[in-house]
Amino acid sequence: MKTISVLGSTGSIGRQTAEVIARSGRYAVKALAAGSNATLLETQIRQFHPRAACLWNEAAAADLKVRVRDTGTLVLSGMEGLRQLIEEDVPDIYAISIGGMIALQPVLWAIRTGARIALSNKESIVTAGHLMMPAVKESGAELIPVDSEHSAVFQCLKGEDKAKVKQLWITASGGPFRGWSREQLAEVTPAQALKHPNWSMGAKITIDSATMMNKGFEVIEAHYLFDIPYEKIDVIIHKQSIIHSMVEYNDGSIMAQLGCPDMHLMIKYALLYPNHLYDQNTKYLDLDSLTSLDFRKMDYQRYPLVKLAKQVGQYEGNYGAVLNGANDEAVSLFLKKRIRFSDIEKYILRTLKAAHYIKDPDPQQIRDSHRWAREYVDELWANS
Amino acid sequence: MKTISVLGSTGSIGRQTAEVIARSGRYAVKALAAGSNATLLETQIRQFHPRAACLWNEAAAADLKVRVRDTGTLVLSGMEGLRQLIEEDVPDIYAISIGGMIALQPVLWAIRTGARIALSNKESIVTAGHLMMPAVKESGAELIPVDSEHSAVFQCLKGEDKAKVKQLWITASGGPFRGWSREQLAEVTPAQALKHPNWSMGAKITIDSATMMNKGFEVIEAHYLFDIPYEKIDVIIHKQSIIHSMVEYNDGSIMAQLGCPDMHLMIKYALLYPNHLYDQNTKYLDLDSLTSLDFRKMDYQRYPLVKLAKQVGQYEGNYGAVLNGANDEAVSLFLKKRIRFSDIEKYILRTLKAAHYIKDPDPQQIRDSHRWAREYVDELWANS
Repeated sequence: MKTISVLGSTGSIGRQTAEVIARSGRYAVKALAAGSNATLLETQIRQFHPRAACLWNEAAAADLKVRVRDTGTLVLSGMEGLRQLIEEDVPDIYAISIGGMIALQPVLWAIRTGARIALSNKESIVTAGHLMMPAVKESGAELIPVDSEHSAVFQCLKGEDKAKVKQLWITASGGPFRGWSREQLAEVTPAQALKHPNWSMGAKITIDSATMMNKGFEVIEAHYLFDIPYEKIDVIIHKQSIIHSMVEYNDGSIMAQLGCPDMHLMIKYALLYPNHLYDQNTKYLDLDSLTSLDFRKMDYQRYPLVKLAKQVGQYEGNYGAVLNGANDEAVSLFLKKRIRFSDIEKYILRTLKAAHYIKDPDPQQIRDSHRWAREYVDELWANS
Repeated sequence: MKTISVLGSTGSIGRQTAEVIARSGRYAVKALAAGSNATLLETQIRQFHPRAACLWNEAAAADLKVRVRDTGTLVLSGMEGLRQLIEEDVPDIYAISIGGMIALQPVLWAIRTGARIALSNKESIVTAGHLMMPAVKESGAELIPVDSEHSAVFQCLKGEDKAKVKQLWITASGGPFRGWSREQLAEVTPAQALKHPNWSMGAKITIDSATMMNKGFEVIEAHYLFDIPYEKIDVIIHKQSIIHSMVEYNDGSIMAQLGCPDMHLMIKYALLYPNHLYDQNTKYLDLDSLTSLDFRKMDYQRYPLVKLAKQVGQYEGNYGAVLNGANDEAVSLFLKKRIRFSDIEKYILRTLKAAHYIKDPDPQQIRDSHRWAREYVDELWANS
C-alpha cells in the first residue's frame, strides 16, 4: 500500500483527491493539510486516520485540536506546522492542491523529499518554476501535473524525445465569451463571466478562463514542466474540451489525449501513473456522440493576456509573480464590480510596466513581488 | 548509417519508401526486390547501389541482369532469389511492401533474422499472424506497422501497459458510400467505388474500403500486432481521416494519433522509430482548419464484412486465408463487372461456409486455403 499526504484536502481538487483515495483503497493517508475548514478536515481525519493534520489558520487549528482529541492524529498549524508535516514523515506521494501563493514553500519542501508530487497548484510553477525544476532534478522527485491540459501533454510526451517536439498545443475552451468582440468584452459582468461552458470551477478560475489568463499561466507552466521553449508552445481554441491538449512532433505526427471533462481522471492518473485504472467514478467518452470537434486559431488580439504571459515567461525572474499578483487583484476588483472586465488586462499591463525586475528571485522575493503587484493594482484603482 | 532492404520497391508504398530513404540520407540500401518492373528497378539500382536485387518474374530478372551488368549489383530471381537476398545479408531494417500472399514466406524469413520489419503487407498478418507473432517473439525482431491505423495504435500504445487497454478504436473513413443504404450499395459500379474521399490508393484497396473489408482485415491485424483480444477492438467511422486511430484506457483516458493522410509519415515513423524526424516531404496538419471532426458508430448491419472478419479472426486457423482469398477473387470479379457490389459479401460468406477448417496451418496450407477460396469463388460465379 502506497502512502500519500494531501495538502489542500478541503478545496475542490483536494476533496476529489480524497474521493479517489477512498474509492481506490490503495493508499494509506499519512497527512492532511488545509486552510481553515476544521469541520471538513475533522471528517477527513475520521475517514483516513492520518498521522498528522495541519490547518493554516491558527484559530481553526486550535478548534480542530479539540474536535479530534480522541483520534490520535497530531494537529499542527501554520507554515511551520506544514513544514513539519511535509518533512518529518515523507510519503510516496504528495497531492498538493493548496490554492494560491501559499503553496510556494510547501511545494519546494515536498520536491526536496524526492517523492512523487501530484500538483494542481498553478501559482507555484508560474512564479517559482525556475526554483522548482532544478530542485526536481536534484532530488529525483516526480512532478506530475493534475490539471487537464498538462496531464494531457504529459501523456502525449510519454516515451518520447522532447527534442523532437515541434509544438505543444494547449487547448482552450475559449471561455464563456468565445466569439465576442473586444467591445462586447468590455461590458461583461461578473455574473456573465461565471458561466463557464464545460468545466465547473471556482469564480477566480472562471474569470481567468474568460480573460484567457489561465491559458497564459498554462503556457508558462508547460514551459517549466516539460522544458519546452516558449516558441514551441501555442494555445488553440477547442470549444468542446474533449481533446485536453496535443503534442505535435517534427515528422508531422500529433499525439492527443481525449477524455471526459472530469478532474477525477487527471487526479487518478497523477497518483497511479503509469497505470490507467478503472474505478466507480470512471467516465468513458461516448465517442459516437462526438459530432463536431473543432479547432480555431487563438486570437491574440482579442485575448492579449496569453501573449503577455508568454513574454513574461521569457523574461523569467520575478515577472511571473508580478503577473500573478496583478491578475489576482484585478480579478478580485472585477468580482467586486469595482473595475470593468476589460480593465483587468489594463491593470495587469500597467503593473508589469511599473515592476522592478529581479533576475533570480528567492521564495521571499517572489512573495514580495506578488504582494507588491496586488498592492500596486489596488493603488491604481484607488487613484483612478 | 543504418542498412535497409526494400522488398516490393516498385509498388506504391515501395516507391514512397525509396523516396524517404533517398531524402533522409540515413540509410545504405542492401537489397531491393520487386515483382516484374525491371525498368523501375534498374533506376532504383542506379540510385541506391544495392548489393543485390531480385525480381520475382524470371523473364524480367533476365532482362534486368542485362540492363545492370555494369553496376555490380547481384541480380536474383524468384522465391529462391528472395530467400537468398533476405537471409544472406541481413540489414538493420526490412521494409516489406510486397503486395498479396506472395509476401507470406519473405515476411517469415525476414522476421527470423531478428531485424526490424517495417511492414505494409496486410495479407501476411491476416492469414499467418499465428505463425508471425511467435516468430517475432523468438527472434526478437521489431515488427512496426506502416499502415496509418496500426501506426497510430502503435504510437498510442507507446510506453503503456496493454493490460490497461479498454478498447482499440480503428478509425474508418467510411469509404465512398458512407451513408448509403444496403439497397443503394447493391447497385454500386466499379467506377463509383473507385472514388475514395481521403486517400489515393489502388483499385483493390479502394473496393476493400468501400465494402469495409479493409477494416475487417485491420481488426485481425491489430489483434495479432498488439496482442489485444477481439472484443477490445472496434471500428469507428471518422470520415475526415485526421485521427488515424485511438487507444482507450481503463481510466477513461484516450490517446489518439493525428496527422495528414500521407503515407510518408507512417513509412518514416516505421523506419526511424522511436524518432520523429522532419524531411522535405513532411506535411503538418493545419489544425485551425479542422472544423468538424466527427465520429459515428460502425453500422455492422450495413457493413457485415467487418463483423465477419472479427468472427473469422476468433476462429483463427486457415479462415483468415479463406477470407482473404475469397475477398481477392470476389473483388476481382466485381472490378471486371461480373458480379454486383453486394455480391462480394455473399460470395465471401458462401466460401467461408464451404471451407475445410485447419487449426494450425503452415505456410503451404495457408497458401492452399487461399488458392482454394479464390477458385471456389470462381466456381460459384461460373455456376451462378
